[in-house]
Amino acid sequence: MELYQQVRTQTLALCQPLNTADHELQAAEFTSPLKWHLAHTSWFFETFLLKPHRPDYQEFHPLFGHLFNSYYNGIGQPYPRAQRGLLSRPTLDEVLAYRAHIDQAMQPLLNDARLQPLIELGLNHEQQHQELMLTDLLYCWAKNPLEPVYRQATQHSAEQTAPNWQSLTEGVTEVGHSGPAFAFDNETPRHRQWLQGGEIASRLVTNAECLQFIEQGGYQQPQWWLADGWSWISSLPPQERQPLYWRRHNNEWSTYGLAGRQPLDPHAPLCHISFYEADAYARWAGARLPTEAEWESAARLYPQQLQQLFGCRWQWTASSYQAYPGYRPAAGAVGEYNGKFMCNQMVLRGSSCATPEGHSRITYRNFFYPHERWQFTGLRLARDTH
Amino acid sequence: MELYQQVRTQTLALCQPLNTADHELQAAEFTSPLKWHLAHTSWFFETFLLKPHRPDYQEFHPLFGHLFNSYYNGIGQPYPRAQRGLLSRPTLDEVLAYRAHIDQAMQPLLNDARLQPLIELGLNHEQQHQELMLTDLLYCWAKNPLEPVYRQATQHSAEQTAPNWQSLTEGVTEVGHSGPAFAFDNETPRHRQWLQGGEIASRLVTNAECLQFIEQGGYQQPQWWLADGWSWISSLPPQERQPLYWRRHNNEWSTYGLAGRQPLDPHAPLCHISFYEADAYARWAGARLPTEAEWESAARLYPQQLQQLFGCRWQWTASSYQAYPGYRPAAGAVGEYNGKFMCNQMVLRGSSCATPEGHSRITYRNFFYPHERWQFTGLRLARDTH
Amino acid sequence: MELYQQVRTQTLALCQPLNTADHELQAAEFTSPLKWHLAHTSWFFETFLLKPHRPDYQEFHPLFGHLFNSYYNGIGQPYPRAQRGLLSRPTLDEVLAYRAHIDQAMQPLLNDARLQPLIELGLNHEQQHQELMLTDLLYCWAKNPLEPVYRQATQHSAEQTAPNWQSLTEGVTEVGHSGPAFAFDNETPRHRQWLQGGEIASRLVTNAECLQFIEQGGYQQPQWWLADGWSWISSLPPQERQPLYWRRHNNEWSTYGLAGRQPLDPHAPLCHISFYEADAYARWAGARLPTEAEWESAARLYPQQLQQLFGCRWQWTASSYQAYPGYRPAAGAVGEYNGKFMCNQMVLRGSSCATPEGHSRITYRNFFYPHERWQFTGLRLARDTH
Amino acid sequence: MELYQQVRTQTLALCQPLNTADHELQAAEFTSPLKWHLAHTSWFFETFLLKPHRPDYQEFHPLFGHLFNSYYNGIGQPYPRAQRGLLSRPTLDEVLAYRAHIDQAMQPLLNDARLQPLIELGLNHEQQHQELMLTDLLYCWAKNPLEPVYRQATQHSAEQTAPNWQSLTEGVTEVGHSGPAFAFDNETPRHRQWLQGGEIASRLVTNAECLQFIEQGGYQQPQWWLADGWSWISSLPPQERQPLYWRRHNNEWSTYGLAGRQPLDPHAPLCHISFYEADAYARWAGARLPTEAEWESAARLYPQQLQQLFGCRWQWTASSYQAYPGYRPAAGAVGEYNGKFMCNQMVLRGSSCATPEGHSRITYRNFFYPHERWQFTGLRLARDTH
Repeated sequence: MELYQQVRTQTLALCQPLNTADHELQAAEFTSPLKWHLAHTSWFFETFLLKPHRPDYQEFHPLFGHLFNSYYNGIGQPYPRAQRGLLSRPTLDEVLAYRAHIDQAMQPLLNDARLQPLIELGLNHEQQHQELMLTDLLYCWAKNPLEPVYRQATQHSAEQTAPNWQSLTEGVTEVGHSGPAFAFDNETPRHRQWLQGGEIASRLVTNAECLQFIEQGGYQQPQWWLADGWSWISSLPPQERQPLYWRRHNNEWSTYGLAGRQPLDPHAPLCHISFYEADAYARWAGARLPTEAEWESAARLYPQQLQQLFGCRWQWTASSYQAYPGYRPAAGAVGEYNGKFMCNQMVLRGSSCATPEGHSRITYRNFFYPHERWQFTGLRLARDTH
Repeated sequence: MELYQQVRTQTLALCQPLNTADHELQAAEFTSPLKWHLAHTSWFFETFLLKPHRPDYQEFHPLFGHLFNSYYNGIGQPYPRAQRGLLSRPTLDEVLAYRAHIDQAMQPLLNDARLQPLIELGLNHEQQHQELMLTDLLYCWAKNPLEPVYRQATQHSAEQTAPNWQSLTEGVTEVGHSGPAFAFDNETPRHRQWLQGGEIASRLVTNAECLQFIEQGGYQQPQWWLADGWSWISSLPPQERQPLYWRRHNNEWSTYGLAGRQPLDPHAPLCHISFYEADAYARWAGARLPTEAEWESAARLYPQQLQQLFGCRWQWTASSYQAYPGYRPAAGAVGEYNGKFMCNQMVLRGSSCATPEGHSRITYRNFFYPHERWQFTGLRLARDTH
Repeated sequence: MELYQQVRTQTLALCQPLNTADHELQAAEFTSPLKWHLAHTSWFFETFLLKPHRPDYQEFHPLFGHLFNSYYNGIGQPYPRAQRGLLSRPTLDEVLAYRAHIDQAMQPLLNDARLQPLIELGLNHEQQHQELMLTDLLYCWAKNPLEPVYRQATQHSAEQTAPNWQSLTEGVTEVGHSGPAFAFDNETPRHRQWLQGGEIASRLVTNAECLQFIEQGGYQQPQWWLADGWSWISSLPPQERQPLYWRRHNNEWSTYGLAGRQPLDPHAPLCHISFYEADAYARWAGARLPTEAEWESAARLYPQQLQQLFGCRWQWTASSYQAYPGYRPAAGAVGEYNGKFMCNQMVLRGSSCATPEGHSRITYRNFFYPHERWQFTGLRLARDTH
Repeated sequence: MELYQQVRTQTLALCQPLNTADHELQAAEFTSPLKWHLAHTSWFFETFLLKPHRPDYQEFHPLFGHLFNSYYNGIGQPYPRAQRGLLSRPTLDEVLAYRAHIDQAMQPLLNDARLQPLIELGLNHEQQHQELMLTDLLYCWAKNPLEPVYRQATQHSAEQTAPNWQSLTEGVTEVGHSGPAFAFDNETPRHRQWLQGGEIASRLVTNAECLQFIEQGGYQQPQWWLADGWSWISSLPPQERQPLYWRRHNNEWSTYGLAGRQPLDPHAPLCHISFYEADAYARWAGARLPTEAEWESAARLYPQQLQQLFGCRWQWTASSYQAYPGYRPAAGAVGEYNGKFMCNQMVLRGSSCATPEGHSRITYRNFFYPHERWQFTGLRLARDTH
């Protein structure tokens, strides 16, 4: 199975620009050290493939099952999440040896047809962590006044014209994944929903548009904000009442990113905003966020007309993350993958510039808490027509 | 307008069994002193009726507009919610005089046809606070080892048989309020939704059924719980890992309520549970919570077959509280009534034993945070059929 | 015993200007409702006099022993301090009846010579609570924009000239209480200390002097502050980085006190400052705080020359609150009165305008945490001479 | 100056057993990563020696002055303490290069007589950090279930007999440092204090003695504890209500230390206890803690009779950390070294097994908050004789 080798190698490739200490950082409970990601993605194969399906499998270390369990209570009590940054042992070299051990042990299983779904899950799981590795790293580095650089800056975006609006007509639509290709369980079952009709913007909101919101006082005016959003933004120090990583210095705006600190690119799609900010911006702009059914329908109907659907920004939707009707998590501990998080979070659609090649899907459901903004998150507007 | 007099009088009637100090209690930020409720419900008429519509209106006190504003940023900065219990002044007598002042000033407006919607809103608002007065009082009194009694206990419930299951067929359904009768803006507009089909229980879950869940270790087993629910329940002291106000003493269960502490009534509908508990119980029972569309459809289809729809327990649904498609809040500060809370909360349907007569509706949407359980909240099961 | 009647009556007299709800306020864990003070001071006699010394004593209510125990673990688990404001029952009338019940039951004991020390302790305990009643009330009322008034304002102070400095010579001094007259156990035993020599100011620091400190940026300059003091002051919102109850409005300073909000009296002694502020002010002024041994020696040596020793402001000293050498707390639960608090607090000497007549002593040791400032606290400077 | 080379080399020697990631750990705000210690101790020489005294000095990096400033507000705003563990850059190699840069730049200054006091301060400062490096490392490693080992275990201690009691007579004593040899400013000036008399134990309290306290319920009985100590111990999870790093498993006690997890050595001196625990143990044992004046006097009088004065455990005293009479901090930012911490902490005397050779003194004053116990802290009893 070629894909296995490719995904596993890609994970290591992401670490190329980094030194040993960069792998150890944990700036918040919701981020994990890169070393932990490297180990945990291997733990997934060890736990759900090797231990159940290779009776002769020799585990690499008796404590790794505890240390690198993320949140699977069915497997045992995980090591406390907030302390992942305190594991100077095992060392990075030991974790790399653990990965090699897993890769070798996996070889006999890779062509076992019955295991393909689980292996695919493991690889998609690892791809999700590839994206987290970059966003977690960025979040940690942003606390360092040295502002490290991960890669070269890209060119500035071309000027954007006003978006076109693509219409969505009222009626039954189908939402969700079906068929033999891989999808996460939370994308299933495919089912019908009633679409109310409206229209959706052909492109994402830009930095320049957000700057207008800022300059007109949007961050200081409660009328645009949900009550919880207003509480959240008011609880931040004043200099953080703007998109994450933005800074104003001598009247010049800059942002921090994987290319280090750069002048704000006005025509680039807005990034690192919370659901609360996305929702407030939309209300200020006389629009609203699309629901995930609208987003998915529009993406099916207008694959050409809608820009930046994938590979650019995760796009906040108006939909809270809940089970699709008829949703059934897998049996056993692997059923904890998605289902138990279906509360208090909002769905994002599309994918981002940090999403691995081949990991995007029209039915893909990403989800974060409404105040979180360390992912590459932006927004696409929608509006009613009547 | 007879209703005005009736609702306003009913608010005062609720205070009959209480002494002065009982009106001052605030045990948590989410509860308010009864005196504050008495004043705030009058403030509502002063702010949205008298000040805009009686140019000659003389306000009762220049600071009351600040003190008794709950959360309407469009009106000005409200007095901090967590400090409402610190207002020994104005006294209860002064607040009663304020109420009388408002009632008198309202007389000329009561028959003004253009103002009927706003007056009805004010009265429904006051009825919502009537229920809060009882639930807030109970929550505060529960902190007092003297366990005060508000009213006499009712008889124990008759034994319950297994529920019947009423079926819901797949297809388009209509949800929400339409027509001239009063409804809150969050119940509108009436719109179509696609129902997936399933069935819904004819009665609510009982105390005895919850006791089984407890005795089989349900509160100690993460597999039944949403991740956030498990975090929440684990953060409570062990003796609170059971429905609110329950207590086990010498192997006897009792509950505290408006009738003081009473032996647990096994056949009474379960009360004072959070969404997390409702959801965990349902999963343990091999069922799920109904969506609000299912609840509303079932209530329309089976008004006779479904017991305890109204006047018993608010019933948690699987639906997060969000705007109906096409929802528009009212213009001005009164538009803050409902819309800005449409995030992070879950919808409850029906009404409770503390809901005022005449305040229930099939389209009524109540909403609370998923961990909250000081309302009279219970659950009705639903399940898929395929 | 006439004193008993007098002290008990005086407690009630303090409540004369108040309404029922004023007795219920608790704005912070460190304050208690006046009703609770009324009950607790009676509980003290019930617990330490009536129950041990009147075998026939009938307790007023079986739960009061729990509800009104402040912190005596030897008596049982006290009701949680932070919830004292939630006790709407017993009512104020019931608490007054409790007081009357205690007073009557105490009659036979009042002339029992063996019990005089305990009775005196109970009365001095009650006098301490008399002062707390006023300071707690003020702290709670200060949260109310109506700014209630307890009593009439006094006249403004006459202009103050520079203080005289009274010298203290190096050598052995005696500190602490001895003899048959009443003193708290923490004032004993009388013992020798070595005084280093220096001088002490004849008067307290005034508001005008503190205003200079403020205007010269003292609250923004870390160099005057202890590290913990700087952390504390930096953690407060900017408008609280000044003495408690001060407010600047349109460039006019005012203070809130028992006479309501009043223009700042420049020549009145500074009040409501924490130890951290006192210490920072002293450092800025090129001086220091006196130790408690210096204060006591000076008060013995210069009773005429030192103004405002008593009845004005509690005066922060440089001394942390610790046991005198040879200190022994009383046997039994009453030994918890003072001894267990001898850590993390600072000693204040003198007495304040809120201290009851007859409750001051040259050896009296008051103590509060260094950040606390809701008492009538001020400072007297000292300095080295070499 | 040979000492310079020796101390600087010793700092690096401590890191020998460690890998790169071990240098990055910060498990609590009060600990710092070893890499940060390595840099900060160099920053001290750069800031207080090189910048003021070598006009031609070229700083190594323009941001290091900010990053490695601990708490000297006079130098500028320090990088937030709680985020020291987030500095993956500069790398350990860069920090070692920084150290080499400083060492080279210091060469011309080392024999400048006027600078000897400051250089000695810098070296003693570095020695203090040498001890912190070990205690911080241990605290962080203790969070890791792999329980890393820093060095080999030492042999178990020989059985201890009951301590002898050395008597201290009442009278004037001299306390503090004088003379030309190095001491920290907080040890000066030498001054007289009045000693009350008593006696002091010839040895430290052992693990076995503490075990008795534990087994007799000492950690569950409030009567032994200061009120703040009782609050503190009650706030900990039950399994931490014992000395830090102790663990009971299958009725066997073990401790974690630099030699990894080891069976509890009953006769070894008790270690890793807070002031609160020391004080509670002493009260339970019918004794008390010595004051720092008693400790210092006894150490002068009985250098032979008193065991374990130095190189074993820091010994909690009954004395709060305050300025000696006449104490003057140095001018400028270096004056922030000790003075501003003279509040809320308790003095420890002696030195520990982690204290560098040659860094102990009879007048040495160490200080920590009363709840802190990650240093090698123990206790020696004292008692009154009358």
